Amino acid sequence: MTTQNNNTTALFPKGEKLTNGYFTGDAFLQVLLPKDKNNDFILGSVTFEPGARTNWHTHPKGQVLIVTEGEGLYQEKGKPAQTIKKGDVINIPENIEHWHGAKAGSKMVHIAITNYEGETNAVWLNPVTEEEYNEANK
Amino acid sequence: MTTQNNNTTALFPKGEKLTNGYFTGDAFLQVLLPKDKNNDFILGSVTFEPGARTNWHTHPKGQVLIVTEGEGLYQEKGKPAQTIKKGDVINIPENIEHWHGAKAGSKMVHIAITNYEGETNAVWLNPVTEEEYNEANK
Repeated sequence: MTTQNNNTTALFPKGEKLTNGYFTGDAFLQVLLPKDKNNDFILGSVTFEPGARTNWHTHPKGQVLIVTEGEGLYQEKGKPAQTIKKGDVINIPENIEHWHGAKAGSKMVHIAITNYEGETNAVWLNPVTEEEYNEANK
Repeated sequence: MTTQNNNTTALFPKGEKLTNGYFTGDAFLQVLLPKDKNNDFILGSVTFEPGARTNWHTHPKGQVLIVTEGEGLYQEKGKPAQTIKKGDVINIPENIEHWHGAKAGSKMVHIAITNYEGETNAVWLNPVTEEEYNEANK
């Protein structure tokens, strides 16, 4: 199966705005491939406009992020936030509470390879508060 | 784990030239992540200079390609070659004999998510002959 894309600048189309309540700000998802009999993961491209981020969450079988554009933040609970940028690959362990998203002043786009454990690939928790987000951007 | 990359143009470094005998021409591999307990695949970026291509091969549990730069070719045995280009996602089925690579006149870079069946992720076959490659480029 081939998914065509004629966009000559960004790697993928931006996709649909995420309105599931698990994101703060303007985040968009382009699904690239659903889980199937060979691929025990969903593959997608997520675009975070400046200020946008996921809620805190965990993945029962981990997730791999590949940053394809811009600069953002990745933070595991209890640790300082780290800057992630184009070309970085982040191997997120299973069952670690974390969030990721854009910086306040720059957008960030990443591919996500989200592994499944059975039918579950994420457990969603509380939003990242303004206070937590401001601290991460310092 | 975070792999840093300071290259501001290409998404990833080109990596090491492939000299395993399974490629024709100048092809390079940058491993992004090895198989681990969560990820039952190896993640890499493969750069094919113009004219470079894989041998014919199969994957016991399939492979996903994400073209990140340029334009190349993907061909399944007995079918016409198809052009693949930046932003295309190719979901290669299990046990289908195929090859991929650059066009004669353009380089191509793709991310490869190569699933494992046990310890095997590919079965390598014959080189793509000049005749086959020229036909595919027509």
